[in-house]
Amino acid sequence: MKHMPTREFRHLATVEEAKRLFFDAIGTGIINEVDAVKIQDITGRVLARRVIARKYLPAYDISVVDGYVVRAIDLHDASSRNPTVLRLVGESRLGELPRIKVRKGETVAVATGSVIPKGGDAVVMVEHAWTLSGSRIEFRAPVGVREGITGKGEDLRPDRLVLERGCRLRAEDIGVLKALGLRTVRVVRRVRVGVLSTGNELVDAVRKYDSAKVVDLNRPVIKAMLRDLGAVAVDMGIVEDDEWAIKAALRAELARTDMILVTAGSSVGKKDLVAGCINSLGRPGMVVHGIAMRPAMPTGLAVVRGKPIVSLPGFPVSAMVAFRVFVRPLLAKLVGVSETPEFTIKAVLSERVSGARGVRTFVRVKVKRTGDGYQAVPLKAQRSSILTSMMDANGIVTLPESATLIEPGTEVSVTLTGNLAT
Amino acid sequence: MKHMPTREFRHLATVEEAKRLFFDAIGTGIINEVDAVKIQDITGRVLARRVIARKYLPAYDISVVDGYVVRAIDLHDASSRNPTVLRLVGESRLGELPRIKVRKGETVAVATGSVIPKGGDAVVMVEHAWTLSGSRIEFRAPVGVREGITGKGEDLRPDRLVLERGCRLRAEDIGVLKALGLRTVRVVRRVRVGVLSTGNELVDAVRKYDSAKVVDLNRPVIKAMLRDLGAVAVDMGIVEDDEWAIKAALRAELARTDMILVTAGSSVGKKDLVAGCINSLGRPGMVVHGIAMRPAMPTGLAVVRGKPIVSLPGFPVSAMVAFRVFVRPLLAKLVGVSETPEFTIKAVLSERVSGARGVRTFVRVKVKRTGDGYQAVPLKAQRSSILTSMMDANGIVTLPESATLIEPGTEVSVTLTGNLAT
Repeated sequence: MKHMPTREFRHLATVEEAKRLFFDAIGTGIINEVDAVKIQDITGRVLARRVIARKYLPAYDISVVDGYVVRAIDLHDASSRNPTVLRLVGESRLGELPRIKVRKGETVAVATGSVIPKGGDAVVMVEHAWTLSGSRIEFRAPVGVREGITGKGEDLRPDRLVLERGCRLRAEDIGVLKALGLRTVRVVRRVRVGVLSTGNELVDAVRKYDSAKVVDLNRPVIKAMLRDLGAVAVDMGIVEDDEWAIKAALRAELARTDMILVTAGSSVGKKDLVAGCINSLGRPGMVVHGIAMRPAMPTGLAVVRGKPIVSLPGFPVSAMVAFRVFVRPLLAKLVGVSETPEFTIKAVLSERVSGARGVRTFVRVKVKRTGDGYQAVPLKAQRSSILTSMMDANGIVTLPESATLIEPGTEVSVTLTGNLAT
Repeated sequence: MKHMPTREFRHLATVEEAKRLFFDAIGTGIINEVDAVKIQDITGRVLARRVIARKYLPAYDISVVDGYVVRAIDLHDASSRNPTVLRLVGESRLGELPRIKVRKGETVAVATGSVIPKGGDAVVMVEHAWTLSGSRIEFRAPVGVREGITGKGEDLRPDRLVLERGCRLRAEDIGVLKALGLRTVRVVRRVRVGVLSTGNELVDAVRKYDSAKVVDLNRPVIKAMLRDLGAVAVDMGIVEDDEWAIKAALRAELARTDMILVTAGSSVGKKDLVAGCINSLGRPGMVVHGIAMRPAMPTGLAVVRGKPIVSLPGFPVSAMVAFRVFVRPLLAKLVGVSETPEFTIKAVLSERVSGARGVRTFVRVKVKRTGDGYQAVPLKAQRSSILTSMMDANGIVTLPESATLIEPGTEVSVTLTGNLAT
């Protein structure tokens, strides 16, 4: 039993400094491998090659109403007193190319979406036409040229940029890509993230109730957070507080993943082996170790062989906060998109919250609807050892480094982490 | 070729009326079948049975710092001038139940998370203790009782309500459920939604470029939107504009799904067969047909044998808007949660937008960051036939029934449908 001399973090980087140093050390870091995915499976993926239209959309002039295709000039003098009667010569059916033409004095029936027959240059809505007999249709007003028609290429033309490289694809994009006749698009491969837990006390499940073993919560939580953000979580299991074991695990997975997240052992105590292990694997190693934030002060941000390794604190609350602050923007960076926006609302603080000067404090709150707005109630237990504080919260209020307290009644910005309580 | 007399919607319900009539006709409608899912797979699912704690969390008094367990009374007189020296009698190791006790004049070393040995009632941080020799530790200040300790059950106690029935589960909940020793929880079964497209002109892919066939965009788009919201999409394919075929498709799938979405044929023209087909299947049938909204006016909301059927307009833009307005809250209702919140931001309108009195207008906009806020630029093409208007938009401004126009420079609320443009 050896007691090391007291070690403390010598310098705490601010959150912004830490992010900048870390991201600079990673460089561009964008994944340049691509997957070809079917159009129906694109949502959430990031486009790797821009899409240029190669077709006209619509491919033909089409009618946007149910009605009659006419030559606008034929209805030039039409009025209620002096209606114009045209001869109905046929119908342009949906899904068929019309062989019929619209000649002087003639009209052709169309449904919404039908192709406009040659010769016709306007569509009169069925509500504004009267059938006199089977083939005689009466019109009581003129119609503008192109009225009722969406022209060939009005939606998309060849060579128009449809979607830019690096955009996050949505269900709304599927329609256009399908309409262009595409079956697959190339997207950035998903980020592969190794997730390792360290600690002699950890097990995946407690079998005996008289055991002091602790169920590892960080791996399942972090894996779920990664999946929610579209990344692939590679489970690296639990290793004991043993330098050889930690190094072996990191070395093996570093080659197969884009990033590794290690939980626990992130501080500077005698059992905090992670920083040393990371530094032994390659340059530059730990870029930032110790951050002026609460919770999650003992967080380490490292880069080894161009790949990020994040050393997260062992308390799940701290690990989740550090994940949100550093890993979430990193995942966006690796696929080449700007940071995934977090949703914030304005709420009135119900109680005083306090932090320390120079430290960014993340206060877990419960946001509730009030008559005309929202109220943010700070959870009583803000200690990082209290797991329920993250579950019970649906929002986080960030107290900046410059503020040491916020008085009740102040309007604050709340980042939502869950559904609003009613 | 038969021309029906002109038919128009006699009455247009407002969006709010439509929703109320539709939801009332469905009744509670909550799915009461449950799935047992593994804790790691719960995100996005809805809890079907409330979870009550059956354990203490933490299970023992634990240390929240690296340091020394003491009897607070022993350090009562400790000061820099008159330090107290205690005898180090052992260590409480992580993951092990300590057999050692803390007796008068003794101390035991602990790491963060270790169980507090019997007799000890406070932990002094390692930074505030000095090792004189291998077994003599010096303390220069008193310590409060319970300091440095998270007590047994301080996080959770037996019989505490952990998560209420009907909550939408998140990654943040995984930690607590795992800590309670749970392996699975019961969640509401996913909503199964049939998706049917109608139209003679529709095909799944166009093979010939000289064809007037149209690729069905609605099914892939709607299926993706359903998946994004955690529902299961059941692809019912394309049927022609044929009453027998539409009825047969609806009847077959109604028994196997919780809801059906039918696209196209939703208006009152001669090819609009869907309303008639739905009404022939059972009571009450169409509850609302024709809604004072733009786009998507010809939307139908029906209930047959207790199951909702939504008749969506054929233009994909209209179908997507009607989906957002009616189907999205319905999916939440069926799993028993309050409506999935949509994220909104405030933005300054760049150009005048106009609607019609009594009609709720959904204006597709592109939201851009400006120096200190956001600007919403309405897309030029607002016609429902212009597919790119939905793809190019990242937000929707809702013009209420009472407003016919909004002037440029006005601050409006924008519902985000995509990432913010930079």
